[in-house]
Formats: sequence, C-alpha cells, structure tokens
Amino acid sequence: MRQSHLFTKTKKEVPKDEASKNAQLLIKAGFIYKEMAGVYAYLPLGLRVLEKIKQIVREEMDAIGGQEFIMTSIQRKELWEKTDRWNDENVDVWFKSSLKNGTEVGFGWSHEEPITELMKQYLTSYRDLPTYVYQFQTKLRNELRAKSGIMRGREFIMKDMYSYSLDEAQHQTFYDATIEAYLKVFARVGLADDTFVTFASGGAFTQFSHEFQTITDAGEDVIYINREKHIAINEEVMNDTVLKELGVTREELEQVKTAEVGNIFNFGTVKCEQLGLSVVDADGKSIPVFLGSYGIGITRLMGVLVEHFSDENGLVWPEAVAPFQIHLVSLCKDAIDIKKADALYTQLHESGIDVLYDDRDARPGEKFADSDLMGMPVRVVISPRTLEKGEVEIKYRTSGDEKHVALTAVMTEIQ
Amino acid sequence: MRQSHLFTKTKKEVPKDEASKNAQLLIKAGFIYKEMAGVYAYLPLGLRVLEKIKQIVREEMDAIGGQEFIMTSIQRKELWEKTDRWNDENVDVWFKSSLKNGTEVGFGWSHEEPITELMKQYLTSYRDLPTYVYQFQTKLRNELRAKSGIMRGREFIMKDMYSYSLDEAQHQTFYDATIEAYLKVFARVGLADDTFVTFASGGAFTQFSHEFQTITDAGEDVIYINREKHIAINEEVMNDTVLKELGVTREELEQVKTAEVGNIFNFGTVKCEQLGLSVVDADGKSIPVFLGSYGIGITRLMGVLVEHFSDENGLVWPEAVAPFQIHLVSLCKDAIDIKKADALYTQLHESGIDVLYDDRDARPGEKFADSDLMGMPVRVVISPRTLEKGEVEIKYRTSGDEKHVALTAVMTEIQ
Repeated sequence: MRQSHLFTKTKKEVPKDEASKNAQLLIKAGFIYKEMAGVYAYLPLGLRVLEKIKQIVREEMDAIGGQEFIMTSIQRKELWEKTDRWNDENVDVWFKSSLKNGTEVGFGWSHEEPITELMKQYLTSYRDLPTYVYQFQTKLRNELRAKSGIMRGREFIMKDMYSYSLDEAQHQTFYDATIEAYLKVFARVGLADDTFVTFASGGAFTQFSHEFQTITDAGEDVIYINREKHIAINEEVMNDTVLKELGVTREELEQVKTAEVGNIFNFGTVKCEQLGLSVVDADGKSIPVFLGSYGIGITRLMGVLVEHFSDENGLVWPEAVAPFQIHLVSLCKDAIDIKKADALYTQLHESGIDVLYDDRDARPGEKFADSDLMGMPVRVVISPRTLEKGEVEIKYRTSGDEKHVALTAVMTEIQ
Repeated sequence: MRQSHLFTKTKKEVPKDEASKNAQLLIKAGFIYKEMAGVYAYLPLGLRVLEKIKQIVREEMDAIGGQEFIMTSIQRKELWEKTDRWNDENVDVWFKSSLKNGTEVGFGWSHEEPITELMKQYLTSYRDLPTYVYQFQTKLRNELRAKSGIMRGREFIMKDMYSYSLDEAQHQTFYDATIEAYLKVFARVGLADDTFVTFASGGAFTQFSHEFQTITDAGEDVIYINREKHIAINEEVMNDTVLKELGVTREELEQVKTAEVGNIFNFGTVKCEQLGLSVVDADGKSIPVFLGSYGIGITRLMGVLVEHFSDENGLVWPEAVAPFQIHLVSLCKDAIDIKKADALYTQLHESGIDVLYDDRDARPGEKFADSDLMGMPVRVVISPRTLEKGEVEIKYRTSGDEKHVALTAVMTEIQ
C-alpha cells in the first residue's frame, strides 16, 4: 500500500485521559482511534493486525476441531435468568436496553447461555458429542473503569470457544488439546517465552482453572513462576497446600506482573443442567453434558503485544502480526530515482509481500521517525545515495541491525 | 469438511413466529439460528456464505480506493446531538443504555457522525482529499417490527462506505465509480439481470438518491422499470415531471416488487459543517467537505439471494457465495467403497475445492433431500452402483442436469 493513500497520519498528541502505553502508542501511530474510555475504533493499520491475530487463532482452533460461527450481541433476559446471571447484583457489566414493546434486552458480555440454548436444537444423542464451537465476537462490558487502553475495553473482540462433552474423560481430552493449541497461538505471535499456563481459581466446579498469563508491567495480575519447572501460580490461589500439591517451594518462585491473555474454564455439568441441555446415551437414558469455555481476548492480546515489544521509538510488531512485513521508505526526489523506487515497490507487492511504501513528499527525519513509531519488522530505505551504488539499506526493527544490499538482491534477502 | 463433523443438522420445524421464506429455509438447512425476531446467529454454513459475500464486496471497494477499518458500536450522545439525530423523535431505531456513572450511550445504527468526527483528526488540507473509508459493521436497530427474516434485522451486518471530497466534481467521480463497483458486486453474486439502479428520493441535499433494487416478491419496495432503457424509478418519486425528465412514459414501465440491496447517498456539505469538518485549500482558506455515504446490507443481500434463487426443494446458492462448491454425497456402506469415497474427498479437498462430504450413516433419500435443501451448486454422488462402473453421478442444483462421469475425470469435470 502506498502511504500517500493511507488516510491516517502519525500524531504527536493523544487524548488527555489516555493513560495506557498501548493506546498512546497505537493512537500516535494511527492504528486506533479513541471513541471514549475503553471504546476504540481500529483504523486500517490496526485492523490489519487484528485480522492477522484472528487468523492465527482461527487456524489453531480449526486444527483441534473447532467450528466457527457467530452468535448475536442482543440477548434474551429469560435465558440469563435461568442461570441467575441477568441480575445486576450478580453480573455488574451488563449493558441493557429495551425493544419498542418494552421487552428488556441485554448486549452480550459472554455467550455460554445462548450457545448452550442453541445447542439444545442440535445435540440430542451421545453420538453428537463431543462438539466444539467458537466465534470472534464483539463483547460489550459496562466496566466501571477503563484505563488500560485496548487491554480492558467496554467494547472488545474475544475469541470464545465452548466444548460440549459426554463425560469427564472426553472433556479432559479437549481441555488438554486446547492448552496445547493456545500455547501454539502465543508462540506464533512471539510470546512463547513469556507466557505461562497458570493455576488459578477454579470457581465452583473444579479446584483450578487455567489462565494464560504474559509477563508485562501493564498487567493487572501477579503470578509466581518457575521457569525451569514451567510452573506458574496466580497469587489468588497461592498457599502452602497448593505449593505442596504442585511440588514447588516459595523460594523457587519468582513474582512477576502479568496480563491474562487467555483462560480455559470447566463448568462441569451445572450450566447445561440449568439450561436444560442433556443427551440420551446408548441405552436411551438422559445424561448431563459437560461444558468447557475457552477465551482469548483478541484486542487485549494486541495490547499486550504492544506493551511487551515496544521501545522508546515506538511500536515493534512481531512478523506474524505486523500490518506490513516491509516498510519501504523512499527518499527519492527526482523522476528517475522515483521510478526505481516505484519499481521496487511493484516487485515486492507483486511477489505477495505485504509492503507499505512511504512515497510521501516528506523530510527523511520525519519518515524515519514515523517508520520507527509504526514498527514494521523490516525497513528498506531507497535513496539517491543508496541508488548511487545500486543498493538499498535494510534495517531490522527489533535488533536495529542495518545492512546494505544490492537492489537486485532485495528479494532474496528479505524472504 | 466432513458432514459427520458439522454440528448442525437439517430440521423440519421452524419457530412458529417465523413468517419469512428466507429465514425458514436457512433455519431448516442449519445456516442460521433465531435468537429473537430480527436477531439471528450465523451457524458454520451461514457464516461461510456471509464471509464470501463480504470478500466480494471488500475486493470491489478496495478496487475503487476504499480503505477498510472498523468503528465502534458504542456511540457518544453529544456527537449525534450536533446533527439532531440523538432524539428518539427524529431517529426511532436507537438502542440506548448508560455507563455506570450515568452517561447515556447509544449503539450504532449508522456511522456518519462518528466517522466524520474521526476524520477531523486526519483530513485537514485539500491534499488529504478525496478519502474513502468503509467498514463491515454489526448495526443495531430497534425496529418496531422484524418479520422479514434476515432481510430486515434488529442486528445485522452492513458494509457502509463514506467518501470525503473537495468539491462537487470530485464527489461525483467517486459516486459514479461506486455505482459501477456496486453493479459488479451484484453481478458477481448472480443478481445482474434483476438488480436495477433506481432513482429514489434524494432527501434535503439532492433531487435523487440511487438505490440498488433487486426483484423479489419478498421485497418491501415497488419500483417501475424499463429493461431496454435500463431505467428504474422508485414509486415514491414517480410522477409526470420525473418521467419527463428521465425520458420515459408510464406505458413503457413495468411495475415490480423489489428489495433494496444497496443505496448511495449525497449529504452535500451539510453533515461536515454540522460536525465541524473542514479543510484548508491551496490559499489557506477554510472550505467545506462533501460527504457521500454508500451502503450494502450484507445479511440482507444473503436473504435476497435465498428468496431469489431458492425452489420448492430448498436453497440454491450461486457459485460465488455457496458455502461449499461441491456436496460429495456418499452412499457407500462397505469398507472398500468407503475408502474410495474418502479418497475422492481427500483429492477434491487437497485441490483447494470447498467440498462438504456427506459421510454420515443415513438413508439415501434423507441425504438427497438434505443436499437439495442445503443447496450447494454441484452434487457428486458416489455409491456402490456408480463405483461398479468406476463412475460418480454429478447433478447441478440450478439446472437439475445430471450426468455420469468416470471417477478419474471428476476433477476435470468440475473445475
């Protein structure tokens, strides 16, 4: 894409009430726009990042048998009353409104209830299990405070997956497969080393749930980790009994601040019983269904990536989610040089490489600062000076390494 | 995809309150699920259709220079007050709610206001124009009645595009380009012959707006068309003066029922003036900006496709939007035959063809009825009888044509 065509520009100012590093940087670089606290629009560059993250998650969910669909934002009151989750005292994040005839409706902050209700139409026999479904849904949550940028929004995108299983063993098999799939997702976006499967509070159904926690100062959680033993414990469940059970001592653990990028949760059979989802077994007997729920906050993950990788010059995108792989920065002024820069852009673009081409008429310093701020993995500079030697300059955003490469060798170098 | 893995099944029953043909068929075939009147979830097959429609629209909007982004559902009251569109007397489809601190918010039923407000940050000079942006947004509209299935929802997906132009001429150039792009979209989804660019009421800013109307009995509009002259007039603007202006007589026109699948609208400079978006021209003088808005109802278009193409046996999908190109129906029972069917599935799948493989253990009559109801363009039947001759049977959903083809020639036949 030609940068002269991109309607966004980098900015020096951010809204006064924006306290989070992730939103500040993303606003400055033109990736997002703040509608109000916790409510952000995703501009062309930001949307590209989101879609790349979603595609990685989609591939890994499909690989373990997930079926993608999309539920609705508008929710029926009576469904949530069955599980006692309509009441504002029990769930304090509802946005509610009403139809013209006065019928109260809510807007989806979670989807276990409607999905389980829907499944009553399709899951009737033990032969229909296990079934795994997932969606990328825009969730609306009426958070009291929203000061963490895109890491905790009032409107945000979540991948939520639900498993319906016949028994504990079938449930556990998928639960374990999801842990592996989630680890693959976090590895693919570049967070493998700093993301931990963490023992956390299990709620009413199981002793533990599992959270995926990524180390970042912007996180709201505190966990205790042991890197060698690959053990991590949320402080909320950290006590002597748990330590003994997991076979670690307090001294072996390091305290770190983290953000929860994913969680997986076992509802047992309770939720399906409340909503009336059961199947018949081989003998024609009605039996309860096990529900698991598995979330990855897509927009939150994007925020964590920003917090985790950015530096004093701006954003730093891991290759797998960068809006463009290459930032081709042209400092060419005269027609012959511009033609060479255009030709390189066309060559890269037509090879299927995502390339942002800074063809703007701007000062070199401004172009370099913008390029650092926007954070593409590889910057290719083409200028009268490099063209004199038939070269371009390549600089890697993460390492800062620079080298000169012959114009004819660019393709080989960056592929 | 193996049909045995698909969690949806065809159904004989639909919700009692479902009056529309499009939703009845889509529910029976397992493409959608009714949450409440005008609120539908899209199940795996339905989501595939939606994504294919979106991709066609995306390609055509990108081709005329559109930049994709995504705004928010949550809306700020003060913005809509500036244009007098917050008040329920003026706009009767708002869903409204409030933040914990009492601040009233609305949920986006349209997005001219927030997009124009956002653009104030990026469009400051005449050099920044023209700019075209679009999104695929889930719109929420508190419709009094919602009886048309997915053709008029309380929650639905819309592609809305906005153009910001320097002057009337620049505006008109893009307006005309959009008409051409829209016609390409409707041609690609198979509606070329029955979709008409229709003169309709222009509102406060222009004499006419342009609607894209598709002939269907399920439509809510009545238009008058002349197929030879390619002229279409919405009945709301049909009078002697308009007829004279367009150079047709009443006798040359045919009255048809239609559904509006797209519209394009000229706001002049009024909206940008209300919201305070202006740019400076070459002389440093502040000048107003021209706004155009261009919509295609994505879910509505899916509904219109159902109404338009379906027959007494069920859905009929045009190739470009079908969830799968091929429905491979296996009637094989013994292990050797099943292996051959599996091999054919693998071969098709690995060639990159979207294929739904009915590998279920069910009666042939049920499989054929399901296949007709689900409406993939091509059905390939593999059975002990066809395998005796080393063949499969191919049937085209639209024409009903059948033929036998050697197993070794299937790939050539269907590509």
